[in-house]
Amino acid sequence: MKIEESALKKESLLYEGKAKKLYKTNLKNLLWMEYKDDATAFNGEKKESLKGKGRLNNEITSLVFERLEASGLESHFVKKISSTEQLVRETAIIPLEVVVRNVVAGSLQRRTGLHEGMELEEPVIEFYYKDDALGDPLVNEDHIRLLQVAEPEQLHTLKRQALAINTQLSRLFRQCGLILVDLKLEFGKTADNEIILADEVSPDTCRLWDAATKEKLDKDIFRYELGSLQEAYEDILNRLGGAARG
Amino acid sequence: MKIEESALKKESLLYEGKAKKLYKTNLKNLLWMEYKDDATAFNGEKKESLKGKGRLNNEITSLVFERLEASGLESHFVKKISSTEQLVRETAIIPLEVVVRNVVAGSLQRRTGLHEGMELEEPVIEFYYKDDALGDPLVNEDHIRLLQVAEPEQLHTLKRQALAINTQLSRLFRQCGLILVDLKLEFGKTADNEIILADEVSPDTCRLWDAATKEKLDKDIFRYELGSLQEAYEDILNRLGGAARG
Ligand SMILES: Nc1ncnc2c1ncn2[C@@H]1O[C@H](COP(=O)(O)OP(=O)(O)O)[C@@H](O)[C@H]1O
Ligand SMILES: Nc1ncnc2c1ncn2[C@@H]1O[C@H](COP(=O)(O)OP(=O)(O)O)[C@@H](O)[C@H]1O
Ligand SMILES: [Mg+2]
Ligand SMILES: [Mg+2]
Repeated sequence: MKIEESALKKESLLYEGKAKKLYKTNLKNLLWMEYKDDATAFNGEKKESLKGKGRLNNEITSLVFERLEASGLESHFVKKISSTEQLVRETAIIPLEVVVRNVVAGSLQRRTGLHEGMELEEPVIEFYYKDDALGDPLVNEDHIRLLQVAEPEQLHTLKRQALAINTQLSRLFRQCGLILVDLKLEFGKTADNEIILADEVSPDTCRLWDAATKEKLDKDIFRYELGSLQEAYEDILNRLGGAARG
Repeated sequence: MKIEESALKKESLLYEGKAKKLYKTNLKNLLWMEYKDDATAFNGEKKESLKGKGRLNNEITSLVFERLEASGLESHFVKKISSTEQLVRETAIIPLEVVVRNVVAGSLQRRTGLHEGMELEEPVIEFYYKDDALGDPLVNEDHIRLLQVAEPEQLHTLKRQALAINTQLSRLFRQCGLILVDLKLEFGKTADNEIILADEVSPDTCRLWDAATKEKLDKDIFRYELGSLQEAYEDILNRLGGAARG
């Protein structure tokens, strides 16, 4: 999609989430997304502003979406507008967080009792019902049918796309010396009812460990106060070949 | 199975759970099950001894298993030995709690935000990983594969049996003026690798509401201190046509 920079105008705020703001634009079906410096965890209980996080996540997500596009995997991403902003296609978000896991960590460790770091022979997919008030609970396919958030064929599409994205990104990160432990994806329906990857793919939404040292380079640094989040995200951006600190 | 009362001997304690004791017997593949008066809830946090509960659950479970057998649905139940004891086939319990739901209540209400009492168009099946230390967490089919607690075909058998049992019991309870809101089943593998219904089917493991008044007549009385648990269980036993207070 070719967009003339001069023709594009940010309009009214559509939605402010925990990590991003979404604005309408003067162009049909296109939204202006702004990455904030806010960090939240544990269903919003832990909160902080971390200077530079918005830029880092915007840069990383933009690179990731570009790489996915290059390997034939579509997303809502249209273009980066500034270091903290991007233009995306408007979608009707399917209220499911689609989690793909390659290594045991976080809630999978707590749920199964398996040890953190155990490599999974096959990826594990989980669906969480995106509802802050309910605390984004795990749901199974019967719950999804009951909640009418996705048709069975749509669920199948979500799984297929999530696995393909996971395969591609595992490879990409691996080439940068990073292990993609797990990732959380959101999908949306476009105006012509296509299901595409939306939201973000960043160290806020993926667990990324250094392949050699197993050091955590993702939001777990913020959750468990393990050091400088911005340094870790900067490291990831650099490894992905992103621009140096702007 | 014909068992001579005189030939049967209770032997060493095999396992003491929260609600029952299991003993070996002198007969191969047969266990002696004793229902205790103990009530527990919220993963063992709430605990009490309720005189007569063991008898009521043993009587109700025995009747239910007999009715299931009469409609061609097998279980581990062999015979009632006394008012608090029964003889059952030994199984290797599959560590999954299989929950079937017909009406929204309990954790389904909390998980989905749907209102208590909403009737489901189709039953919802849930699997919980039977592990006290982990708090019996909800698991999906990928988790079950990862935990290696059941093969895909076994899972299919569990679902099919659980739905058949639910249909049969919904009808049975309905005839007694009761709504089977949900039920928790456990299955085990017999010596010849058959999967059969085990454990108990009682107001401790089912939600049962009076069809007319929607009054709760199950363990929720204990969980939320709604009145006399024994009176409600006695009511259920009577409605099922069970023996009067012994
Ligand atoms: N392409 C899109 N179209 C519409 N909404 C989107 C799109 N991409 C992401 N969103 C939504 O924008 C919101 C903003 O993101 P975020 O701040 O991460 O919110 P949240 O607090 O819900 O995580 C999210 O609810 C997300 O689902
Ligand atoms: N036929 C059977 N063979 C072997 N074990 C059984 C059988 N039926 C039930 N059990 C097991 O007996 C145990 C006793 O029951 P209970 O007191 O309810 O235990 P819990 O505290 O685990 O709920 C349960 O762990 C149950 O899985
Ligand atoms: Mg978000
Ligand atoms: Mg039990």
